[in-house]
Amino acid sequence: MYVILVYDIKEKRVVKMLKLCRQYLNWIQNSVFEGEISEVKLKELIVKANAIIKTEEDSIIIFKSRQEKWLEKQVVGMERNNLDNLL
Amino acid sequence: MYVILVYDIKEKRVVKMLKLCRQYLNWIQNSVFEGEISEVKLKELIVKANAIIKTEEDSIIIFKSRQEKWLEKQVVGMERNNLDNLL
Repeated sequence: MYVILVYDIKEKRVVKMLKLCRQYLNWIQNSVFEGEISEVKLKELIVKANAIIKTEEDSIIIFKSRQEKWLEKQVVGMERNNLDNLL
Repeated sequence: MYVILVYDIKEKRVVKMLKLCRQYLNWIQNSVFEGEISEVKLKELIVKANAIIKTEEDSIIIFKSRQEKWLEKQVVGMERNNLDNLL
């Protein structure tokens, strides 16, 4: 399964969330991740994310696509991912 | 065509970008939009976005799916969209 994960998390919890998501997905922009992940691993990620977030303040949206080829990606402006690889 | 648009824009240009994206798509989280849009309208949006952003500082990623049903959405935590509707 291919997923796009975007989060909107209060600053004090962002670092934890970033570290968690990076264990499962590729970071592609500020608060956006993507990657191939199994149903089981995604559930694991969600359980761990739920332990970090405050449900009344934070939000995570996950878009799931059964196949990566069903999604075409276009980048306008800078590719943060490239920058990330350099750091 | 169904798209998810995420941007990472320097603060001084964010309001312009938010207003632009809202003309074409639905705002679902901080810097995330989604919606059904034609190829022509999307091109129009990208042209206008390019006029707002600084390509060396800002980044927009657009995920395109030919059909919305190919994407399943899961929200963890708060649904910002609901809050937005209330305001």
